[in-house]
Parts: sequence; C-alpha cells; structure tokens
Amino acid sequence: MDARTYIEEHRGEFVAALKEWLAIPSVSADPDRHGDVRRSAEWLAAHLKGTGFPSVEVWETGGLPAVYAEWPAADPGAPTVLVYGHHDVQPADPAEEWETDPFTPVERGERLIGRGASDDKGQVLFHALGVRAGLAASGADAPPVTLKLLVEGEEESGSPHFADLLRSRRDRLGCDVVVVSDTTMWAADTPSMCVGMRGLTHCQIDLYGPERDLHSGTFGGAVPNPAAAMADLLSGLHDADGRIAVPGFYDDVVEIGEEERALIARLPFDEEEWLATASSGAASGEAGYSILERIWVRPTAEINGMWSGHTGAGGKTIVPKSAHAKLSFRLVPNQEPLRIQEHVRAYVASAVPAGIRAEVAFGGPGVRPCASDLSSEAVRAARAAMSRAFGTEVLYTREGGSGPEADLADILGAPLVFVAVGLDDDRIHAPNEKVEVPLLLKGAESAAYLWEGLAQRG
Amino acid sequence: MDARTYIEEHRGEFVAALKEWLAIPSVSADPDRHGDVRRSAEWLAAHLKGTGFPSVEVWETGGLPAVYAEWPAADPGAPTVLVYGHHDVQPADPAEEWETDPFTPVERGERLIGRGASDDKGQVLFHALGVRAGLAASGADAPPVTLKLLVEGEEESGSPHFADLLRSRRDRLGCDVVVVSDTTMWAADTPSMCVGMRGLTHCQIDLYGPERDLHSGTFGGAVPNPAAAMADLLSGLHDADGRIAVPGFYDDVVEIGEEERALIARLPFDEEEWLATASSGAASGEAGYSILERIWVRPTAEINGMWSGHTGAGGKTIVPKSAHAKLSFRLVPNQEPLRIQEHVRAYVASAVPAGIRAEVAFGGPGVRPCASDLSSEAVRAARAAMSRAFGTEVLYTREGGSGPEADLADILGAPLVFVAVGLDDDRIHAPNEKVEVPLLLKGAESAAYLWEGLAQRG
Ligand SMILES: [Zn+2]
Ligand SMILES: [Zn+2]
Repeated sequence: MDARTYIEEHRGEFVAALKEWLAIPSVSADPDRHGDVRRSAEWLAAHLKGTGFPSVEVWETGGLPAVYAEWPAADPGAPTVLVYGHHDVQPADPAEEWETDPFTPVERGERLIGRGASDDKGQVLFHALGVRAGLAASGADAPPVTLKLLVEGEEESGSPHFADLLRSRRDRLGCDVVVVSDTTMWAADTPSMCVGMRGLTHCQIDLYGPERDLHSGTFGGAVPNPAAAMADLLSGLHDADGRIAVPGFYDDVVEIGEEERALIARLPFDEEEWLATASSGAASGEAGYSILERIWVRPTAEINGMWSGHTGAGGKTIVPKSAHAKLSFRLVPNQEPLRIQEHVRAYVASAVPAGIRAEVAFGGPGVRPCASDLSSEAVRAARAAMSRAFGTEVLYTREGGSGPEADLADILGAPLVFVAVGLDDDRIHAPNEKVEVPLLLKGAESAAYLWEGLAQRG
Repeated sequence: MDARTYIEEHRGEFVAALKEWLAIPSVSADPDRHGDVRRSAEWLAAHLKGTGFPSVEVWETGGLPAVYAEWPAADPGAPTVLVYGHHDVQPADPAEEWETDPFTPVERGERLIGRGASDDKGQVLFHALGVRAGLAASGADAPPVTLKLLVEGEEESGSPHFADLLRSRRDRLGCDVVVVSDTTMWAADTPSMCVGMRGLTHCQIDLYGPERDLHSGTFGGAVPNPAAAMADLLSGLHDADGRIAVPGFYDDVVEIGEEERALIARLPFDEEEWLATASSGAASGEAGYSILERIWVRPTAEINGMWSGHTGAGGKTIVPKSAHAKLSFRLVPNQEPLRIQEHVRAYVASAVPAGIRAEVAFGGPGVRPCASDLSSEAVRAARAAMSRAFGTEVLYTREGGSGPEADLADILGAPLVFVAVGLDDDRIHAPNEKVEVPLLLKGAESAAYLWEGLAQRG
C-alpha cells in the first residue's frame, strides 16, 4: 500500500485522535491551565507509544514538560532526524469572538476548528501518521531514518526553558538535521517551504534632561528638550532610503541569494490584498526590496512605543524632564543580537546632545535569526518530498518573526529544514483557529517521503 | 516734601494695608475662593477711594470682578495713563511647603512673605502710594496725568473674560499709554524694565497609521510606523542650527535691535547659576543668540508631550496604530498666532508620509506676543523715572511668557510700558512667595516720577 493510500484510509482515525488532543486546553501562558499542559504531554506520549515509537518520555523542564520520542532506523548508518513542534497553545481570548467552543473541536467540511488545530498540535500529529504511512509503504518495521520527536510545552510563552533543555539533553538529541513543523505555507494551492526566520532584540531607551519639568516660557528655547532629543534619535534610526542608519547594523547581514529571490518573486503576491490585511494605507520600507523581502529577509528598527511629558487633556507648556521609547529590531542571518545591542548602544550614545543623559536597557539576550542552507541536501530532500506530496513545485517563503528555532540549530549543531502545512489564514493566536485537514494529510505524506529521501541521500 | 520722603514716612501704613489685603485669599482658580476674590475687589476699591481716586468702580465680567479707578488730571490736555495689574493670586499649594501661613502675611526684616505679596498685590498697591507721593511733592490736588487703574481678578486663571471686558469698556479705558505692573526686574541691585513678552500657541498632533496595532514580525519593515513618522515630523521642526524649520515661521519676526541687544548683553548673567536654576546639564538653542536672547526675543517650537503604542512594562513587538504629540510655540513680535497655526498645519501636512493620516488641533486662538517701542517717549520716560528712583542706570529685559498684555495694547490701541519691581526669586506661583518692601517703595517712587515725566513730555 502506498503512503498516500494509507493516509487516506486512516484519515478518520487521525482526525478523531487530533480532536481528542485539541480538547485538552494546554494554555502555557495561563497558570490555571498548567495541569492541562501536563495532561497534553501525557496524551501525546501515549499516542506516540501507540504509534509504535519504542521509546517515549515526558521530560521535565524548569517549567512545563516536553515530550520526547525516538524510533531508531534499522540501519545504524542511517541519518538521524529531529522533528520539533509544541503541544502548548495560545490562550483563547477574547472568548466572545469564538463561534464555537475553542476546546471543543468541530469539523466543518474539510476544516477542523479549535485552538491548536494548526498551531501546533495538528502539525505535530501528522508526523505520527506520516511515520506509519512510510512503514506501510515500505513494509519495514522501522523508519528509514532514526526519528526523534521533541515537542515542547512552553513555546507560546517564549520557550523560557527550552535552550536549557536542549543543552542538558544534548547527548540524546544528536541529529543530522532538524525538521521544524510550526510554520505556514503560502497558500493551499501554492505549497511552499519556510527557509528562514528573523531574530529579535528589543530595548527601552530613557533620555533624561532637566531634573524637573520646566516652564517653557521661562526656559523654552535655551535648554535641551529630552522629547526633541528622542525625536532626533528615533528619526535618525533610518535614512531617506529606509535603511537603518545605526553604524555597523548591516555588517553581518547576508544578502538574499538569487535563487531565493527569484522563487519569492514567483509567489502570487497581491499588494492590495496585503495592504487590506495590514489595514495600512500604504506600504513603505527599505528601497530596493519588495514587500515580502522587507518583511522576510531584511532587518528592521521599529518603534513599538514612546512617551514623554504631558499626555493628558489640554495643553501644558513644559519642557519635559524625560522621554522614553521602546524599540525592537528584527534581525536576519547572520546578525547577532548581542552585537546589534552594542551597535544600538553606541548609536544612542552618539545621538544624545549635551545636557541629556541616556539609558538603554535590552530585554534579555534576544532571539537569533535562522535560515536553511538552500544548497543543502536536507532542503533539497524536503522540497522534493513536499513536491511529490502536493504534486506541484514548492516555492520558498520566510517568516518575519521566530521562536526557539535558532537555538535548535545552534545548540544541536544541525541544519534546519521547515516542513509545515499551516496557512496564514488559519487564525493562529486569534479566535476561531482552524486547520485544513487535507493539508495535514499532505504534511504526513511529505514526512513519509522525506524520511525515505533523506535515507537515500544520506 | 519730596516724593521719596513722603514714601519713607508712609512705609508703615503702606505695609499694614498690604498685609490686610494679602490676608484675603483671592485664588481665582479655586471656586471655593471666589467669594474671597470678590472681597479682594471690594477691599481694593475701598482702598483706592481712601487714596483719593474720585471715581472707583467694581466691574463685573463673565467671571470674577475687576476694579477700575480713575483720577483725572487738572489739565484736560494732560496725557492719560492706564495702569494694569491683578488682584487675584495663585493657589497656595503645596500647602505643606509653606513655612508660614500663605494668607497670614509675615514681615521678616525687609521682606514681606505671603501669597500675592509680589504677584501682584504689592505691585498694584505701590501705585496708590505713588500717586499720593506725587501729590505731596507737587502740592497739587490731582495727578499730572489722568490716571486710570484697571485691576483684574482672573489673571491667574488665564484672563478668560479680560479681552471682552476691554472691548465692552473701551470708551472708559481710552489712554495714551498702558503701564503694566506685573513683571520682574533683573535683580535688586540691577533695576531693569521688561520691554517685551513672548506669545504662545499650542496644539496636539495626531498621526494615524494602520487601523490596529500590527505584529512587527508579520508587518514590520513594510508599513509606515506612525511613531516613526512622528519622530521624523518632530525632528524636522528644527534644523541643525536650532532654527525652526517650519516654512514661513520667521516671516514676521522682528529682529532684536542693536540698542536692546547691547543692554541685554550688559546684564550680569551667570550661565552656571542659570543652568543650576534650570536644573539642566547644558544650554542649547538657536545658533547666533545668547541664552537670554533665546528665551526672550526668539520664538520656539517645544515638544510638551508625546505618546504612542506600548508604554507599559516589558516589550511589545508592535507597529503602533497611532502617535500623538503636544507642541507649544512661543512667539515674538510680530508673529501672529493664527498665521503660525497655518504654517504649522502646512508643515504637518507636508511631513507625513503615504499611509499616515494627520490631525492638528490648536488650543484656541493663542496669545499674541507684545513689546514696547524702545524709541517711544513712554519707554524713555519710564526708564528715566526708574533710574531716578533707583539712582542707577536701568537695563532692559523681556519675559519668555505672557498673560493678557497684548490684548491691552491691541484693544486699547496704546503702547505698553512695563514698570514693575518683582524679582525672579520672589517665588511667585510657588510656596513662600515674598516681596522686598524697599523695592515696592522704589516702585511707588518710580510711578510718581513717571506721571510727572509723562506730563512734561506729553
Ligand atoms: Zn506554533
Ligand atoms: Zn501676575
């Protein structure tokens, strides 16, 4: 029996299992739901055992548990693949905007509606179906690669214990490639592979001027105004071409390659539709790059908030004593968040005038950007596997933000490949999350083909 | 008996009367004190009647009452002078910072401590002493000029009904010169005359971008950020020389004359001391002008407040949907607030990028700047009178902010002269307000000489 037929025949069983899992409200951000996150881990462990994984463990972390499962290949020389996903979900608020109960999954035609259906339980679960489909097709007792699944329980809370978990379990997690199943495709009829994610570092800048708010009649025009200094500093973040003017900021940026650029340009992008989704009256950004390139392969400096002086009703003729801003920087390979932090500190120091004191506080070490190596066997195998499953060419996309993916690549020292079948309109992190069941089945099929392909190439 | 001797002999009587008046808490900003403001008007009316003014009236306004007194010159061809002051006072908060009760005036050596001692009851009352001193010196029954006193009761509340009062009483208020006694001198040993005050107009600017806060990972770098647009707009308010870059802003600015500039430069200005008073680490401002020129004779564009996006704890990686700022513009002769408003509107419209919508709302018509004509007989006479009273040369100052003075000049069509003896360290509008009694006596003497001088020159 070929993999596709096996998958079609087991669709009902797969959906039933997924509905069972989705009914467990594993909201990691809600302390009242932490018991449910544990139940979710146990449910998954039991399911993977039932799938045939010979070794399944629930791993404790400093916070909520992860699930680890391993199925060795028969051939000890076969490559090892680590699949990453997460079993915790976003909160379901605002509750009143859900048309059905978020934790009572409902099928509507080809869709399954419920929190976590797309992000990420559906995409974790297709791997259980995929490995069985591969076995059905090959007639073997074990997958053609050594398969490891690591499914964390704190991704929607910023993965605070994930890097520690990777480090402490590094001996168990050794692998030749990491397959991430937690992203989206361009569209149901335009299958694509994510090949990179932007990193992030964010900070607060505080500028202090006079010790108290000054009367602008008495002092205005002769003392530096921290709000004006902040405006200059923030305005100076970009040049007239929309490039970031912080010295050194682009030092480590890898320019997008011609192959990727060409494939991105072939995506059926509709600017008007995109603007409507953004609810923005116009596009803007760095000269010389398309909208998709700006949000995927170019770094940003964004003002997330600012405040100074009088913000209430009416006027108050003061020179305010301080001004504050929150900035975030989206980073692309190979920008290092800590180096960017140094550049930003130096820029702020150079930008403040005499009489103004600046403080810059970063919110932690930041998130490193990550990308797949497009010339690698892993990417070629994954693209081939998805093309075979979908019956059409697979294009490339990236994502503008990211989770713990860079940690996986860095700590495990293995290349990243993204195999996922979510859609941008799945309403992940929003009310009425759904997933297209046929796409989950294509995901399972892609996985079955990918293990076969990697075994042949490895 | 000469005027100075008369004044010295009546010092005790003068201080006793002032203490009585200061005990009336005429706080116009406090509705609970409005009865006291009326009592204050009645006290002053009675006192001026006692001084000998043949005609004294309490004038009702849309708010709190003003006092009007008139004493015609014997010579019907003598000039007419209108003296302006106010009988309402600032609130006394914070009450706990007063060392004595604000409305129980206390003498400490040469000082009299109490709310209103300097601003402005002491300076109104010296005119009653001054006119009697002049009569004692001349032996006449009437002053050498027709003397009109207009003492309003809402100055510390922004004089909301004053312009209407001037317009409706214009027939009674006709005069050749307006003498304002509500300012300060440079120092007790450096007598000076204020010769101008800056005007004001203030606004709120609102910039609107996307219809909701956007996720900066998904959209950052490709949509215009209203906070960044605001930073650009605010940063563009000034050029590198600290000049205001709003087109047309300086069109009507009258450059300071050489005489005034030279006299200002002779003021014993201590930059370090000034910086300490400003609690600012440095001075700044428009290139080519001294600190005093920047705060007195040059216009400003000041950011009084701004806010946008996330201003709470931690980071929030959004492109905010809007950004807001409050600006005030100090104006100098002959800038018209309404024309400046047009220039600012045009600047904002030109400064916002595609995809951002701007709204600008001004807080009313604004306050016009005012200045004395330094070549006028009135200014020369006032300067000579003060020089004679103080026994030394009188320099020029200006004030960085203003009250209703421009209305007096405009509506009454008469030139302004400032004759006042407050000091910058009188702590007006602050706890422990005081006045130097010897300076009030010099004010009375200056007034006596000024009426004489104006009669001779007129
Ligand atoms: Zn996810
Ligand atoms: Zn005053």
